[in-house]
Amino acid sequence: MPQLRKNPVTREWVIIATERSKRPSDFSQAEDSSVKPAFVDNCPFCPGNETKTPPEVLAFRSDPAAAPDTPGWWVRVVPNKFPALAIEGDLERSGVGMYDFMNGVGAHEVIIETPEHDKCMATISQRQAEEVWWACRQRMLDLAKDPRFKYVSVFRNHGKVAGTSLEHPHSQLVALPMVPMEVHTEIRGADQHYDNHDRCIFCDMIRQERNYGERVILETDHYLAFTPFAARFPFETWIMPKQHIRCFTDVNQELLQGFVYALQNVLRRMRVCLNNPPYNYTLHTAPFGSEKDHLFHWHLEIMPRLTIAAGFEMGTGIYINVTAPEEAAKHLREANPDAELESQSEIAAPAIH
Amino acid sequence: MPQLRKNPVTREWVIIATERSKRPSDFSQAEDSSVKPAFVDNCPFCPGNETKTPPEVLAFRSDPAAAPDTPGWWVRVVPNKFPALAIEGDLERSGVGMYDFMNGVGAHEVIIETPEHDKCMATISQRQAEEVWWACRQRMLDLAKDPRFKYVSVFRNHGKVAGTSLEHPHSQLVALPMVPMEVHTEIRGADQHYDNHDRCIFCDMIRQERNYGERVILETDHYLAFTPFAARFPFETWIMPKQHIRCFTDVNQELLQGFVYALQNVLRRMRVCLNNPPYNYTLHTAPFGSEKDHLFHWHLEIMPRLTIAAGFEMGTGIYINVTAPEEAAKHLREANPDAELESQSEIAAPAIH
Repeated sequence: MPQLRKNPVTREWVIIATERSKRPSDFSQAEDSSVKPAFVDNCPFCPGNETKTPPEVLAFRSDPAAAPDTPGWWVRVVPNKFPALAIEGDLERSGVGMYDFMNGVGAHEVIIETPEHDKCMATISQRQAEEVWWACRQRMLDLAKDPRFKYVSVFRNHGKVAGTSLEHPHSQLVALPMVPMEVHTEIRGADQHYDNHDRCIFCDMIRQERNYGERVILETDHYLAFTPFAARFPFETWIMPKQHIRCFTDVNQELLQGFVYALQNVLRRMRVCLNNPPYNYTLHTAPFGSEKDHLFHWHLEIMPRLTIAAGFEMGTGIYINVTAPEEAAKHLREANPDAELESQSEIAAPAIH
Repeated sequence: MPQLRKNPVTREWVIIATERSKRPSDFSQAEDSSVKPAFVDNCPFCPGNETKTPPEVLAFRSDPAAAPDTPGWWVRVVPNKFPALAIEGDLERSGVGMYDFMNGVGAHEVIIETPEHDKCMATISQRQAEEVWWACRQRMLDLAKDPRFKYVSVFRNHGKVAGTSLEHPHSQLVALPMVPMEVHTEIRGADQHYDNHDRCIFCDMIRQERNYGERVILETDHYLAFTPFAARFPFETWIMPKQHIRCFTDVNQELLQGFVYALQNVLRRMRVCLNNPPYNYTLHTAPFGSEKDHLFHWHLEIMPRLTIAAGFEMGTGIYINVTAPEEAAKHLREANPDAELESQSEIAAPAIH
């Protein structure tokens, strides 16, 4: 019998169609598995091609005297060359009859995660991944100072199926002049839960998930990685700090390190279990200037793209998930996050001797 | 400068990224253009293969004495062999800690639109398309009698990119034990507009679109086809009755004929303009037993699948549309809906002489 499960935060229902249940190997949408070169001549994000991007807004370099937009960086943030929103200008809110619009003012930036073309968030070193998220945090703090912006969405698209157009590993961020509906809905759900119970809904979720355990993939000192009860997508995974922290920018170095460890661990499990699947992830964090909203609790949602949302999902907002979250968690829990690394050492070993 | 536009019904913002504006020919995702056979031996929806589907729940046949699940039908409705929801059983609503769930009870049916494997909703005769929608209406009315169901979602997935797995032309319907969030949001928007203005928001939209004209694709006696002001997808098109009608099942024969004419006309324009694009469409109609909600106004939303929703859309609910709705409407308005038919006659002509 299929199940209908309700997301307690957004109140959206999902269908867990257990009759259609699929094992990891049934998903054949593995992302391009061809071996990529470490450097690509015409890639705008590869070192040496810095002039192919708009001027950088941030870069981490060992030489503080180095000129911007030159090689020598390990993380580089640049405006998107084809931005969805423009950084210059005023909102000029206006109406045309019954319709409301405003200028598409915002920031749209690309975080180039490594100089190496053939790596990704799962395969760079932990230190390198920390630097990426540190850069991200720094950009969020900087954009928060602009009074036009109310929210920054941070996301990553991995693989063509997940909407990426450039192969070189990168994340993106978009600063928005409004709080997006998805975030607004989560805040409303958290507020209502607090009204009823005087507790954070996300903290309650962590307590319950730890208690049951069947959806937990990984628990570390500071983080819980689990498949949500009402997962919309097969193998959807959330990473949440166990402490109640509103905003991603409030993390200190220790918490950021812990987050990156959990993220890379989960992404590596997915690579092993699902053969390098295409995925999107998005950071969910409190809007700027909402210090009174103590109820939000930042987290990351990872959504592998193994199935296609079609007319039913688009018309109803109800997702059909063909893999029970408990089943997905079991597979991810049992996957060895170091399997890829170990097999690479085995291959590499004979060459050394 | 990109624009931010707000959907007046759902209050969702979209980004119209005019800098990235694309012409119809820039979209290369044309659906499989190979010539298909009119009959496929192992297709479960082709005539003669009726035993490959679950027993039919409705079929239109000229011979009233014919046995069910045999050839001779022109429209056939069968339960989905791999249903997302099960027709038997009680909801048994329950909770596990903070989570709510219920049995996945509902109906999931397939409307086989024609015996001919190589046709689609755009290319069947108008008479045949009317029969499809008549069957659809009949199934909706029948399912409305089941007290467990509150809404029927009718949708069509065209092409692999749009999530279809079987090539033979078909639509689907899912009867649900709850009103889905998307419909709920639309009703709430319509209610609030009525509270403020004592008018239907959809009727107001029709008035304004007819008045401006720049987003209108087609106007007939009873229908308006237009690209919505806050279109989420390039070439997204809505077809709406000009009369205030709550529920699709309230249409009479004349209104159904008019709807089918507008639908086929728009789909043919899309085929010509966008080279047989993959698309989804979904019917938006009032929930069952909501006779007091006089504010809903049924309509069909057609969403070509020309771009990929990625991390940003999934995390924020804000869509980036690379084609301004006014531009899309212009292209569709100028497209000849009969172009395909005419070119086929030209090819066919020499054979006759």
